[in-house]
Amino acid sequence: METSYSFLLVHGSWHEGSAWDDVVHHLEEAGHRAYAPTVAGHGPGVNKDVTHADCVDSIVEYVEREDLSDFVLVGHSFGGTVIAKVAERMPDRISRLVFQNAFVPEDGSSLADEIPPHIQELFETLAAQSDDNTIMLPYEIWRDGFIGDSDESLARETYEYLSPEPYAPLVASLDLSTFYGLEIPSSYLYCTEDVALPPGPEWGWHPRMSNRLGVYRLVTMPGSHETMFTDPSGLAESILKAGRE
Amino acid sequence: METSYSFLLVHGSWHEGSAWDDVVHHLEEAGHRAYAPTVAGHGPGVNKDVTHADCVDSIVEYVEREDLSDFVLVGHSFGGTVIAKVAERMPDRISRLVFQNAFVPEDGSSLADEIPPHIQELFETLAAQSDDNTIMLPYEIWRDGFIGDSDESLARETYEYLSPEPYAPLVASLDLSTFYGLEIPSSYLYCTEDVALPPGPEWGWHPRMSNRLGVYRLVTMPGSHETMFTDPSGLAESILKAGRE
Amino acid sequence: METSYSFLLVHGSWHEGSAWDDVVHHLEEAGHRAYAPTVAGHGPGVNKDVTHADCVDSIVEYVEREDLSDFVLVGHSFGGTVIAKVAERMPDRISRLVFQNAFVPEDGSSLADEIPPHIQELFETLAAQSDDNTIMLPYEIWRDGFIGDSDESLARETYEYLSPEPYAPLVASLDLSTFYGLEIPSSYLYCTEDVALPPGPEWGWHPRMSNRLGVYRLVTMPGSHETMFTDPSGLAESILKAGRE
Repeated sequence: METSYSFLLVHGSWHEGSAWDDVVHHLEEAGHRAYAPTVAGHGPGVNKDVTHADCVDSIVEYVEREDLSDFVLVGHSFGGTVIAKVAERMPDRISRLVFQNAFVPEDGSSLADEIPPHIQELFETLAAQSDDNTIMLPYEIWRDGFIGDSDESLARETYEYLSPEPYAPLVASLDLSTFYGLEIPSSYLYCTEDVALPPGPEWGWHPRMSNRLGVYRLVTMPGSHETMFTDPSGLAESILKAGRE
Repeated sequence: METSYSFLLVHGSWHEGSAWDDVVHHLEEAGHRAYAPTVAGHGPGVNKDVTHADCVDSIVEYVEREDLSDFVLVGHSFGGTVIAKVAERMPDRISRLVFQNAFVPEDGSSLADEIPPHIQELFETLAAQSDDNTIMLPYEIWRDGFIGDSDESLARETYEYLSPEPYAPLVASLDLSTFYGLEIPSSYLYCTEDVALPPGPEWGWHPRMSNRLGVYRLVTMPGSHETMFTDPSGLAESILKAGRE
Repeated sequence: METSYSFLLVHGSWHEGSAWDDVVHHLEEAGHRAYAPTVAGHGPGVNKDVTHADCVDSIVEYVEREDLSDFVLVGHSFGGTVIAKVAERMPDRISRLVFQNAFVPEDGSSLADEIPPHIQELFETLAAQSDDNTIMLPYEIWRDGFIGDSDESLARETYEYLSPEPYAPLVASLDLSTFYGLEIPSSYLYCTEDVALPPGPEWGWHPRMSNRLGVYRLVTMPGSHETMFTDPSGLAESILKAGRE
């Protein structure tokens, strides 16, 4: 008999929980449970005036409300910064951490510290131009940098789905001293055609972020930063490989 | 209904247009148009006394003669230096640039500047030993460094097909200041087992060349430098993913 | 008619010759011969007081006893240090060297010199704690760092199979001046999800080890450090691609 797992999926910037809908469906079809809450300040029409701590709190409260335990905690992209802090708060509930093309920030750094200066500047400009300290991704960057493995119609459809990202959580310095002392097993799931960060040792996702996990399991699959949209069944399969005991 | 695309395929060193024959066939079968001219000074029995500008001119003239527009311009290997200059000359005709395991030289550098010193020296020696300032690749380098994914019989058959490469275009410093200001969408298509350049951040194709494109789409596939011979249908499929809107 | 090859497979640390059993089976089914001796000091219940030279001698003697010639010499992990020295001793018998996620040590360095300081220290501590100067891998490192692509049951079953590794051969400085002057064709076979060494230019298998081979053939496949257990048929296929003429 196959083991049945519980997954808590934490989305990244510009996304909300429903980004995982197709992945959740595939995980459930395979006999597992999957939860995909929306992080505070994310999604359309909500209050965008949130801190990184608010984002973390919203997931911690979700776990407590749903009374989840013994689950695999998955973070995508910005979601990596959230799951690292959630892990500090409730390490005993989490069987394994899975970072999917996700930030694993160094202790004391912010997400913004971990991206190339020209993207930092772009984000700063976009935030300043907004009236609520949010940033929206230009379509050109989305199309080739984030979802280059889709056809044009899916690229446009998913772009419509995105919502402005609160900027404050991205520039918050994160105290991760507790996180780096935890002993929760970790996996890094890397979609190999992701160029949302410039590939390579200086700014790339892997192995720059992944190696910070110390001993970790590596799972790779083809695809862009947005395989939740472009290959949800493949992503679900990889999440299973990354998350199993 | 699927969009129909036009592809202009520019070959690399030691090759001629017919290297793309099988790829052209697969692209046409999929409902697209594909053109594969031979760059000046390339192929057997032609005048090898050409400059890099002659190479570029020959493609520009081909485009004008065939009256091509709204096409995807693909360059393989040395062909990357050619399409960058062609793009400067006729940016409005080009819908997207695709660099396939190709050079994307820095402004002011030559192809030779972008390869490791020991290969530079080998090329210099081979050119000096020739009577017409050309270089021919030793079989051992071709077999393992260029076409390691073929069986021996295809490796030998394709080696017979190669013709001496004019050396002057490889050492010409290229003014690419206009190229780096263009706003044509770009893709990098990377066959991941290519060791024609030593892999890694210092001399490898990807991400060294690719990251110079700024925001770009990355498409990867297995295979060596010579997938046009070893996996033409897979390459055609990847060119479609790299080239579509 | 397909060419029939002979393969001599040299295992790595904590393993013995029978680790290759399934791979040997697949190679034989494909019409080839495959030999998988156990390196001196390896396997359960044997004398662990061996030098690196003893390891090399044991393979050289095996080749002479079996009178093997015109064979492909494959080394996995630590086995790379062994096949490099075996190649120095009997270059004319070897048609090609295949390093599979293997060490290709620099002339004068030991295996231990080629691994990150924190793993060096762990090994040193483990050796000091043993009563026979051997080291055993902690299960957590085996499970995620070595065999992350297996399910838990195979991870545990194969862990039971491992035996303590003699420490002396890992810290022996290796004179490889002859090896680096040999002209035996070489291949590097890289399973891309291997995190037994931290991926990346500083400590990773590829391209750090592979590029030392000069002109080489690269063959990649998915999987961890232990594809001999997790994907023996895929590994056999890749060994054939890496080893053929």
